[in-house]
Amino acid sequence: MWGGRFAAGPAAIMEEINVSIDFDKRLAAQDLAGSRAHAQMLVAKGILSQEDGTAIARGLDQVAAEIEAGRFTFRRELEDIHLNVESRLAELIGPAAGRLHTGRSRNDQVATDFRLWVREACDHAGERLTLLQRALLAQAEAHAETIMPGFTHMQPAQPVSFAHHCLAYVEMFARDRGRFADARKRMNESPLGSAALAGTPYPIDRQMTAQALGFDRPMRNSMDAVSARDFALEYLAAASIAATHLSRLAEEIVLWAAPAYGFIKLSDAFTTGSSIMPQKRNPDAAELVRAKTGRILGSFVALSTVMKGLALAYAKDLQEDKEAVFQAADALDLALAAMAGMAADLKPQPQNMRRAAEAGYPTATDLADFIVTTLKKPFREAHHSAGAIVKLAEEKGVALADLPLSAMQTVEPGLTDKVFAVLKLESSLHARTSEGGTAPARVREQIAFWRKELA
Amino acid sequence: MWGGRFAAGPAAIMEEINVSIDFDKRLAAQDLAGSRAHAQMLVAKGILSQEDGTAIARGLDQVAAEIEAGRFTFRRELEDIHLNVESRLAELIGPAAGRLHTGRSRNDQVATDFRLWVREACDHAGERLTLLQRALLAQAEAHAETIMPGFTHMQPAQPVSFAHHCLAYVEMFARDRGRFADARKRMNESPLGSAALAGTPYPIDRQMTAQALGFDRPMRNSMDAVSARDFALEYLAAASIAATHLSRLAEEIVLWAAPAYGFIKLSDAFTTGSSIMPQKRNPDAAELVRAKTGRILGSFVALSTVMKGLALAYAKDLQEDKEAVFQAADALDLALAAMAGMAADLKPQPQNMRRAAEAGYPTATDLADFIVTTLKKPFREAHHSAGAIVKLAEEKGVALADLPLSAMQTVEPGLTDKVFAVLKLESSLHARTSEGGTAPARVREQIAFWRKELA
Amino acid sequence: MWGGRFAAGPAAIMEEINVSIDFDKRLAAQDLAGSRAHAQMLVAKGILSQEDGTAIARGLDQVAAEIEAGRFTFRRELEDIHLNVESRLAELIGPAAGRLHTGRSRNDQVATDFRLWVREACDHAGERLTLLQRALLAQAEAHAETIMPGFTHMQPAQPVSFAHHCLAYVEMFARDRGRFADARKRMNESPLGSAALAGTPYPIDRQMTAQALGFDRPMRNSMDAVSARDFALEYLAAASIAATHLSRLAEEIVLWAAPAYGFIKLSDAFTTGSSIMPQKRNPDAAELVRAKTGRILGSFVALSTVMKGLALAYAKDLQEDKEAVFQAADALDLALAAMAGMAADLKPQPQNMRRAAEAGYPTATDLADFIVTTLKKPFREAHHSAGAIVKLAEEKGVALADLPLSAMQTVEPGLTDKVFAVLKLESSLHARTSEGGTAPARVREQIAFWRKELA
Amino acid sequence: MWGGRFAAGPAAIMEEINVSIDFDKRLAAQDLAGSRAHAQMLVAKGILSQEDGTAIARGLDQVAAEIEAGRFTFRRELEDIHLNVESRLAELIGPAAGRLHTGRSRNDQVATDFRLWVREACDHAGERLTLLQRALLAQAEAHAETIMPGFTHMQPAQPVSFAHHCLAYVEMFARDRGRFADARKRMNESPLGSAALAGTPYPIDRQMTAQALGFDRPMRNSMDAVSARDFALEYLAAASIAATHLSRLAEEIVLWAAPAYGFIKLSDAFTTGSSIMPQKRNPDAAELVRAKTGRILGSFVALSTVMKGLALAYAKDLQEDKEAVFQAADALDLALAAMAGMAADLKPQPQNMRRAAEAGYPTATDLADFIVTTLKKPFREAHHSAGAIVKLAEEKGVALADLPLSAMQTVEPGLTDKVFAVLKLESSLHARTSEGGTAPARVREQIAFWRKELA
Repeated sequence: MWGGRFAAGPAAIMEEINVSIDFDKRLAAQDLAGSRAHAQMLVAKGILSQEDGTAIARGLDQVAAEIEAGRFTFRRELEDIHLNVESRLAELIGPAAGRLHTGRSRNDQVATDFRLWVREACDHAGERLTLLQRALLAQAEAHAETIMPGFTHMQPAQPVSFAHHCLAYVEMFARDRGRFADARKRMNESPLGSAALAGTPYPIDRQMTAQALGFDRPMRNSMDAVSARDFALEYLAAASIAATHLSRLAEEIVLWAAPAYGFIKLSDAFTTGSSIMPQKRNPDAAELVRAKTGRILGSFVALSTVMKGLALAYAKDLQEDKEAVFQAADALDLALAAMAGMAADLKPQPQNMRRAAEAGYPTATDLADFIVTTLKKPFREAHHSAGAIVKLAEEKGVALADLPLSAMQTVEPGLTDKVFAVLKLESSLHARTSEGGTAPARVREQIAFWRKELA
Repeated sequence: MWGGRFAAGPAAIMEEINVSIDFDKRLAAQDLAGSRAHAQMLVAKGILSQEDGTAIARGLDQVAAEIEAGRFTFRRELEDIHLNVESRLAELIGPAAGRLHTGRSRNDQVATDFRLWVREACDHAGERLTLLQRALLAQAEAHAETIMPGFTHMQPAQPVSFAHHCLAYVEMFARDRGRFADARKRMNESPLGSAALAGTPYPIDRQMTAQALGFDRPMRNSMDAVSARDFALEYLAAASIAATHLSRLAEEIVLWAAPAYGFIKLSDAFTTGSSIMPQKRNPDAAELVRAKTGRILGSFVALSTVMKGLALAYAKDLQEDKEAVFQAADALDLALAAMAGMAADLKPQPQNMRRAAEAGYPTATDLADFIVTTLKKPFREAHHSAGAIVKLAEEKGVALADLPLSAMQTVEPGLTDKVFAVLKLESSLHARTSEGGTAPARVREQIAFWRKELA
Repeated sequence: MWGGRFAAGPAAIMEEINVSIDFDKRLAAQDLAGSRAHAQMLVAKGILSQEDGTAIARGLDQVAAEIEAGRFTFRRELEDIHLNVESRLAELIGPAAGRLHTGRSRNDQVATDFRLWVREACDHAGERLTLLQRALLAQAEAHAETIMPGFTHMQPAQPVSFAHHCLAYVEMFARDRGRFADARKRMNESPLGSAALAGTPYPIDRQMTAQALGFDRPMRNSMDAVSARDFALEYLAAASIAATHLSRLAEEIVLWAAPAYGFIKLSDAFTTGSSIMPQKRNPDAAELVRAKTGRILGSFVALSTVMKGLALAYAKDLQEDKEAVFQAADALDLALAAMAGMAADLKPQPQNMRRAAEAGYPTATDLADFIVTTLKKPFREAHHSAGAIVKLAEEKGVALADLPLSAMQTVEPGLTDKVFAVLKLESSLHARTSEGGTAPARVREQIAFWRKELA
Repeated sequence: MWGGRFAAGPAAIMEEINVSIDFDKRLAAQDLAGSRAHAQMLVAKGILSQEDGTAIARGLDQVAAEIEAGRFTFRRELEDIHLNVESRLAELIGPAAGRLHTGRSRNDQVATDFRLWVREACDHAGERLTLLQRALLAQAEAHAETIMPGFTHMQPAQPVSFAHHCLAYVEMFARDRGRFADARKRMNESPLGSAALAGTPYPIDRQMTAQALGFDRPMRNSMDAVSARDFALEYLAAASIAATHLSRLAEEIVLWAAPAYGFIKLSDAFTTGSSIMPQKRNPDAAELVRAKTGRILGSFVALSTVMKGLALAYAKDLQEDKEAVFQAADALDLALAAMAGMAADLKPQPQNMRRAAEAGYPTATDLADFIVTTLKKPFREAHHSAGAIVKLAEEKGVALADLPLSAMQTVEPGLTDKVFAVLKLESSLHARTSEGGTAPARVREQIAFWRKELA
């Protein structure tokens, strides 16, 4: 496999650590596409004969068919996907298979295959994120007036609508899509034709192969082309950031589904039971989505560590790029699909949301604002008074709206019974009309924007 | 500080863990800018009186002057930059200071301050990267014909020019710039006016404050605005990827400066001596650049871990965002500046590069290509023959170009003495004329491109 | 500073990246201790004169006094703590200061200083953990019969006692202590006298300095001594694992303090208010403890990345070891202290715990066990029946104990009214008498064990 | 599978994300062992009949045989290893299979299985490390007088022996063994019998099952037992630290095998060729070992992230513990085996080592020490003079030993021709007789120590 200089075969452990076919067979489609484009270009440039070109095309089609049909035997002694394909091609079409490798090397070949794979992973993540956004938007459309407590520090802070809460995630996932789109655009350059590291003397046409593979252009520098893996790191970074967003929503679903909150119900389709406790309705899918963050962040760390301090150009260390990306991509894919499923499946329980909203004095800010506006106090003083009034309500164990005016007046003598209008949850919700605020009118603007965007 | 409900002060350890002024004072300029924009808008919308507005503007100017002059006393009992500024403002202008906080909260305030800071860090990284690219380009311009061994697996593979090698890094740093630019664009939205989490009833104008602060637009959802830190994660991811590139170049500088290679000399300005071994000329700066990768990657992990599973909206966990970013930004800044310095300072040693290039049979590929072209053999066979000829040369301890033709003919009888033309380093270098290859003509195309790009 | 060969001073950026005194001054006490031990040994071995030894001892005392009193001027142009101390020593005692450096190098000096520091950090973490365990044990002692829902998947699963829950953390923190103790033991070997990397020709006595500094023995190999940082990594790993435990307890405190659970109250000493919402009682300290996990894990990643692929022996990369450890140690220290404070401060609210326990059918397992025992059904069948009975109760909206026997008998005809005995929370709690179970008798065994252990 | 309350089956994506049998089938042996121990105990305690016990034992044996023979059908719809085994057992022995689950839960079952697996991984890592140490020791035994340059900052610093260098790694790997041994000891406690989280009412004997499974004792607290994964984190931390050591040695092997150093030759068994460059002899195995560090560190980060902020007791997030550990264990296993192979395979090239040692003025320190000793100068001054003399030699392009005495005397007039004795590499090596130094006598002490230790 490595030419005539090697007298002895590799040690068994060497084969074990060196072989990559167990995972890089996932690059089969990309490898075949790259070989097709390369062969066509070699023929067009007169480097390969027309006959060779035809034979190679036919042979690659057959290999593709065998792989598709599950009839292709991947052999570990052939180390990787490139040699597996080439070896089978040689069986099928004879010596022409050897001429396919003219003007390229495994170094640019694997860089090309892997870029094509990661490019597709970016597109796929974008699509999955869109489906998730749509599911959240659908919830938002139904719940622009469904009041829940908006939390800070897990303490009820101010009433918000469930729609507003869902739309916060729509925003996050939109930025995640942007990151994948930017990564895709930046990585969409062709390494093919860079050969081992320095280019090749054959009169190849890299524009032609780049175009055939859907790349925007060839990479400008051949050493960069075979050495760089920042495209994979950027994908992993985008995935990792998206995973933190997923983990936040997953945490909320776990809490919302807990009896203590009861804000949502998940159907049997997204919950499991216990092997010992028959009453359980466990939000396993949400927990698993939350946990997948670890795998994805770990993959970014793994590949970053591999790349740290690696001299140019190609080094075998780079073989450790693929499993990190495959595993992260699988984890992200599962997490996005499961989350989209849950986002569609979950049923808000407005009465439980409302009860929780009422429990936490969430209109205290409205009271403070009322004092500012009507009594012309500086905000900090009004805030102090509102706090004192909350303390009175706490001591009496009543909601703010149920505290007698006279009690409030012991703190702020100037208060009148108009104050009760601002202490209702609905008032508070509808009052927050600043751009991007939770007032239903404002939330409907967001909904309209996203309905158009996600159409 | 937190209103009238709190009977007792915080425990000492609570103050210790809670206080952030020691590091968030770095946000002072951003905090003042945000307050100026907010105050102007409040006046424009009639929420604050003209007098209050004038007093606040004057007061903020004075605070800015005090901070600039180092006369401002940051007080830990005031916890953070926001309360430090507001408290001093109150001393200077009285109750109007309290009215500045109308229609905002510390939650949107800190999100605004921090976005402004990270935005600037993106711009700064872009500038530093450009300076580094220019220094590398200058080296490339002088060395398009300086031959060095191109390595794969740290083994000499094929001759490349030093220019080509430098330009590989110019490409990497260009993509790094692209990542910072994309991050900046994505984060350039204003959280200001989102208040605690739900917006505010005051008739504020978020477009106006967004514009005043150079943001492209207000953020669309108030809960997202106070909860999101993906902008900081994206900055850290871009920094971390750039750091892997820096670490690769740093590793090469350490090796190139080692006597075993001797490819470059660093001046006294970028080396240090030893406290015990007087002959040492240690590339400390390169080693430190290499090591900074750890800090930066560690910061990405740190903030990702903080964000994992955090329920909306604001939580105090988010206070841990700033040190991670500040430390990574400082490390990246130092590393980029030191690397730009070294890139300009290093003096290539062409004779050492050439000697190393000759040592490793780096024209063996050319020999294989010659066999393909002249003897019409499939590449794989030609490659096998070339390997056998290298083995002969190894056994005799001579360079390929010094192996007699007769010896080569024992492997490939058809070879003629034309083969010697391709065995020279210069021939090999000039032959690699594929787009992006190391042939000087191709490298000069790259140089021309970058000279224009970096002008 | 680096001998006579350097014509020009370092570039400004070089000084900036190279200087470590800003952080390594934290090693001052360790550096002085190392120098004292080294000087005494040099005198004992006749390498230094008695006079020099006396002068050095006096000089070091004075330096120590100056640092203690805050009168020592740390100078950045002297780069690090070693040269700052030595330079001041030279001012104080003249040329004898130079002779102190005989038979050592900065490489073994910094390794010694840093090991001493990390060793102390291990001891300190152990003490802090013990205080935290004691605070949790005190809660356990008071609450062996306080019933709360034991959760799995955040769903109430079975009743447990608050004591039992607290003691789970006592166990985790005990293992954390074990890790710090093991790390300390493994790192307690002296690098001093390894010099730059190869040892020294001076007839030094490394046993003597090792003993003077409390090390168990000298390190056996001088290259290992100056190159190894696994002692720091092991400290960081132990800290990082402890931080995950802290984050779990912190998460629970945040939830328990939320109105939705109301399981505990935190005093004003460990909560903060809001700048805008006067009713808030935010568990900031718990949130910050939770977030510190990021910093500590990030530090482990940072130093691991630094060490990856570093050739022996000393490299300047190793200078990046200290900030990672200092920051993690500070974060851990704060987190442990704050957590111990909260563990003592929190007041369980038994009635809220009980109400939550009742809400979730947590005695369903007891029902299943009862069916197994009394009706001699296989567990899996009994579990199925119990699930069906819970479903009936859910449909009727009643607790299990309030479901009529007749209804239960539609699922399991053989049930008698003895079943009601096992459906009570207390019965369930007291029934779990397996070793390590939550039955009060078992929990009191744990308490007795820990009371003795932590005395 | 989860009892009678679930009307609809899980969504397809739910099954996809939830299923763990694809990876947890690696726990089959542990699961069977746990079930055997549990069944025996249930019989001994009279909870199961003798007949049931016999049937279960027979059934488990058959399941084991089927798995061993590859005839067991793992079914994804049965989710995990526990249910796959139990379901097959039911087919084989009928209803008694259901009674095996009495007094346990999947929560303690998986904790037990996984602890057993990780315990074995610790033992295995210890054995692999020992083999690697032995291979390094064998090299050391043959090369106590083989001189190579000892590097700091990759610059030749002082001569050391190849043995001394190898033994530095023997020390590191010894500490790694210590970490695995400590981890094993700490984790060797039995969770079995903790049931879901709270223990069980059945009169089980946890001491008996603990003993049967080789555990030192039962875990003391049932909630801790099902929730804790610090044992897995500690394994991963030990693996990660060991991986940094492996990566350092791997980096050195890559460099030593490069023609620029030529310090070692690797046989064909541990090198590969190039698909395009026939002369290459690439140290792929070393590069892959170096890169595996990423995977292992990434796994520690992954699981740490999963555990961060996870409320007690069991959560489905914990299912993400296994792949992280399996993958790290596989990577570590391969890396250790490959490194042991290379350590035995590599052939030092003493003449190349010597040539490199001579090139770098590595006896300059000896010169400085000579000046201290013979001319009674303070070390710092002597160091300065030695630096100036090196500068002279550099300017003349000669080795220190070839610089005329007269030239040296222009710097240090007092020097005599005795100085030449210390400027030889052998003198320098033999002079470093401090404990742990590189003098052959000292190195032979280390060898003797390790020969005994590793016998």
